[in-house]
Amino acid sequence: MDEKVTNLPPDPVDPATIAKHLGALRVADAVDALDALDHPTAVAVLKAMPSALAVQLFDEAGLVHPHKIVELLPDALAGAILHGISADRRVEIFRKLKAPDRQRLSKLLSPEDQTALAQLLTYQDHTAGGMMTTEFLSLPPDLRVGEALRHIREVANEKETIYSIYIVDPATRRLIQPISLRDLILAEPSATIGSIERHREPIVVLPNTDREEVSALISKYDLLAIPVVEASGKIVGIVTVDDVIDVMVEEATEDAQRFGGMESLDAPYMEISFLGMIKKRAGWLCALFLSEMLTASAMQHYEAELERAVVLTLFIPLIMSSGGNSGSQATSLIIRALALGEVKLKDWWRIASRELPSGIVLGSILGVIGFARITIWQMAGLYDYGEHWTLIAATVGCALVGIVTFGSLAGSMLPFLLKRLGFDPATASAPFVATLVDVTGLIIYFSIAYQILRGTLL
Amino acid sequence: MDEKVTNLPPDPVDPATIAKHLGALRVADAVDALDALDHPTAVAVLKAMPSALAVQLFDEAGLVHPHKIVELLPDALAGAILHGISADRRVEIFRKLKAPDRQRLSKLLSPEDQTALAQLLTYQDHTAGGMMTTEFLSLPPDLRVGEALRHIREVANEKETIYSIYIVDPATRRLIQPISLRDLILAEPSATIGSIERHREPIVVLPNTDREEVSALISKYDLLAIPVVEASGKIVGIVTVDDVIDVMVEEATEDAQRFGGMESLDAPYMEISFLGMIKKRAGWLCALFLSEMLTASAMQHYEAELERAVVLTLFIPLIMSSGGNSGSQATSLIIRALALGEVKLKDWWRIASRELPSGIVLGSILGVIGFARITIWQMAGLYDYGEHWTLIAATVGCALVGIVTFGSLAGSMLPFLLKRLGFDPATASAPFVATLVDVTGLIIYFSIAYQILRGTLL
Repeated sequence: MDEKVTNLPPDPVDPATIAKHLGALRVADAVDALDALDHPTAVAVLKAMPSALAVQLFDEAGLVHPHKIVELLPDALAGAILHGISADRRVEIFRKLKAPDRQRLSKLLSPEDQTALAQLLTYQDHTAGGMMTTEFLSLPPDLRVGEALRHIREVANEKETIYSIYIVDPATRRLIQPISLRDLILAEPSATIGSIERHREPIVVLPNTDREEVSALISKYDLLAIPVVEASGKIVGIVTVDDVIDVMVEEATEDAQRFGGMESLDAPYMEISFLGMIKKRAGWLCALFLSEMLTASAMQHYEAELERAVVLTLFIPLIMSSGGNSGSQATSLIIRALALGEVKLKDWWRIASRELPSGIVLGSILGVIGFARITIWQMAGLYDYGEHWTLIAATVGCALVGIVTFGSLAGSMLPFLLKRLGFDPATASAPFVATLVDVTGLIIYFSIAYQILRGTLL
Repeated sequence: MDEKVTNLPPDPVDPATIAKHLGALRVADAVDALDALDHPTAVAVLKAMPSALAVQLFDEAGLVHPHKIVELLPDALAGAILHGISADRRVEIFRKLKAPDRQRLSKLLSPEDQTALAQLLTYQDHTAGGMMTTEFLSLPPDLRVGEALRHIREVANEKETIYSIYIVDPATRRLIQPISLRDLILAEPSATIGSIERHREPIVVLPNTDREEVSALISKYDLLAIPVVEASGKIVGIVTVDDVIDVMVEEATEDAQRFGGMESLDAPYMEISFLGMIKKRAGWLCALFLSEMLTASAMQHYEAELERAVVLTLFIPLIMSSGGNSGSQATSLIIRALALGEVKLKDWWRIASRELPSGIVLGSILGVIGFARITIWQMAGLYDYGEHWTLIAATVGCALVGIVTFGSLAGSMLPFLLKRLGFDPATASAPFVATLVDVTGLIIYFSIAYQILRGTLL
C-alpha cells in the first residue's frame, strides 16, 4: 500500500502536475515523494503548490534535506514556509544551514520569531531544549474552565498540541501545573482552571536534559508531552510524544550502527555519499585493526611454540571467535540493561558475579564439544593430531572454558567501564569486544597449552 | 530523583505502611517499588491498599510479573483488579497465565468481559490484535457535536483515550471515520459529527498486522492511536501510542540482543534465572561454534603450507577479525535500513553495487596499514619475517583487500537473504556474520598466499 501511494505519475510530468498529485496524498507520503525528487525539481514543485501545503511538507520530520531545499527557494516562499512551520522544526532546519544562509533566511522571519529562534539555537542539539517547541498552550490559573475551552478553540491551529495545557503564572512564567484537555473537559465549566485537582509535582525536564532521558520519562509515565522548565521554574517549551518517537527510532539506529562497529550515519543509507560512508566506517575499522595488530605481536611472542606444534594453530580461529561471541552476547545484554535503567553503575559487582558462573558454564559446554570434535576426528581417522592428541583436545577444551569465561566477563564489564569514564556505554561494539578478547584469548590459549603440553609437544 | 522516590522506608515495615507509601508515589514509580518486593510481600501489600490503587498498578506495563502475583491473590481482589484494568492489559496478563489459572481467574470476570477476553486471546501476540484495546470511543455519525462532547464527559473514565474518536456505523460496526477531540472541539456544536470534514481514507491496520508495522505507521503519520479493522471494515479495537512506545523499546532490546548473537530475553536481565540465561545464550553460541569448526577443517586443509611457512599464521587473527568487523558494519547498516523501510528487498542489487567499491576502498586502507606494519617491524629490526618479507607483506595487504571486500558484501547481502527466505533480517547477528566471513577469509588468505609465495616460501 505504502509503495503504491507514493508512486509518482509516469514521466514526463510538469511541476504543477506533481504538486497536484502531492496535494492528494497524506502529508507523510507526499514528503516521501518530494524526497525522491532532485532538489531543483523539488523547488519547482514547491513553487507550483499552495504555500500552506509547502508548510505542511516542511513541518514533517520525514523530509530529509529541508535545509538544502529551502536555501534554493525564492525569498517569498522560503519566508512563508519558515514562518508557517512549528518552532521546533524551524530550529532543526536552521541548525543545519550554513552561516550565510542562516543569516539571510532568518531575516525573512518576524522580529519575534527571530528572537525565539536565536534563543532556541542556544540550546544543544540532542537535549530537551534542542528539540522542544515554544508553541504550547499556557493559561493563567484564574481563568474559568469554560473560558479556557473557548480560548483553546481560538488558538488550536497555532499550537502543536492542545491535549497538554500548562497553567503558568502570568507574571513570572513559572509553571504551576500541567493539566490535560481530558481534565479540562471533565471539570465544572464555572470553576477556575487553577482549582482543578492538583496532581503530584509535575514531571519536568531541564533545557539541557539529554533527549534519551526525555524519551525514557515520556515512555515510563505514558505522557503525551513533557514541559521544559529552567532551574527558576520558568517554562520555556514542551517536547511532544511524536518528536520523542522520532528520537527513539533515531537512537535505535545510532545504537545499532555503533554496535556494528562504526560511527552512526546521520542520514538514510542511500542518502549518504560514497565518501561520507567510507569516512563513517574507516575510522573504527582502522582503530580496531591497529588494536588487533597486538594479536600479531602476541603470536610472534609464541613463535617458538608455534614452530614446534603447528597443530595448535588449527584451533586459533575457533577459540578466538568463541571468546568474541560470548563477549558480544554479554555486551549487548548490558548495554540494553543500562539503557533501560534495569541495572545501574553500582550494580557492576552483581553482574560480574553472575557473568562469571555463566561464562564457566557456557565455556564448559563449548569445551566439551571441542574435546569431542578432536576425539571424533582422531578416532574416525579424519585427521591425525599425533600421539598426544588427548593432550591437544584437553588444551582446546580448557582454553575454551577460560576464553569464554573471560569473554563474558570482559564483555559485560566494558559498558560499565565506559559509563564510569563518562562515555556512552553503547560505544562498546561487537567488534570492539571481539578485539579486546582476541589478544587475551591468544595468551590464555598459549598459556594453557604450555601447562598441558610442556614436556611432550612443547 | 528517580531513585529517591522509589526507595522504600527502612525495614522492618508492615504491608500497610508500604501500601500507604506506594499510594503517595507516581503510579509508574509505585510499580517499580512493587516489583522490588518478593511475591508474597507484594500480595500482602496489595491486600492492604485500596483496590482502585491496585488496579492502577496492574494497568502499568512496567509491572513485570503481574500474572505471578494475581494468581496468589484472594479471588475478590483478583476479580476487582482484572475487572478494573484495561482490556489490552487484561489479555496480556491472561496470555501469560497457565491454563488452570486462566480458567479459574476468567470465571471472576463478567460474562461480557469473558467473551471479549476469549475473542482477544484468539489474536496472536506481537500483532495489532494482540496489543489492541477494545475500550475506545465509538460514536454514531448522526450525533451532534455538543451531544458527543457531553457523552465523552460521561464515559471518559472507562476509555483508554478520548483524544481519538471513531465514527462507526451503529448497525454494522463498520468504521466510517476517525476524528480527533481537536476536530470535535473546533466543530460547530449543532453540526452532526458525521459532517465534520472528512479526511483521506483513514489509516487502519488488520488484526494480524505485525506490531512493528503498527509502530512504523504511528511513527510516520504522528498518530495518537490507530484503529484495528477486520477485512469487512468492522472496527474491533485501537492501538494507542503509549503501547507503541513500549513495543518500540521492547523491539530495540530484542534487536540489540539478537545482533549480539543470542536469543532475546523476554524479561529484564536481573529477572531471568541463571538457567534461563544459559539457555538463551548457549543455543546460538553452540551453533556458531559448530559452524566455526569449519575453520579448523580449512586450516587442516592448508596444513602443508602452515608447516612450511609458520610466519603466515601470525596474521591469521588480524586478517580474520578485519573481515568480521567490516561484515558487522555492513550488516548493522542494512538491518536498520530494512527495518526503517529505507531500502526494500528489490534494492539488493543497488546495495551490492555500493558495498563492493566500499569494501575495496576500506580493504585497501587496511591493506596499506598492514603492509606498512610488516615493513616497519622488519626495517626497525623488531621482528625478522625472513628474506621474503616483502612477499609476506604483499600477501597480507592483498588478503586484507579481498577479505574486507568479501566481508562488506557478505555482511550487506545476508539480511536480504534472510528476508527473502522469510526470516527477520535482524537474525543476522555480528557473530553470525563474523563466522560466515571467517571460513571464507581463511580460504582467501591461503589462496593469495599460494599465488604470491609459490616458488619461494610455499
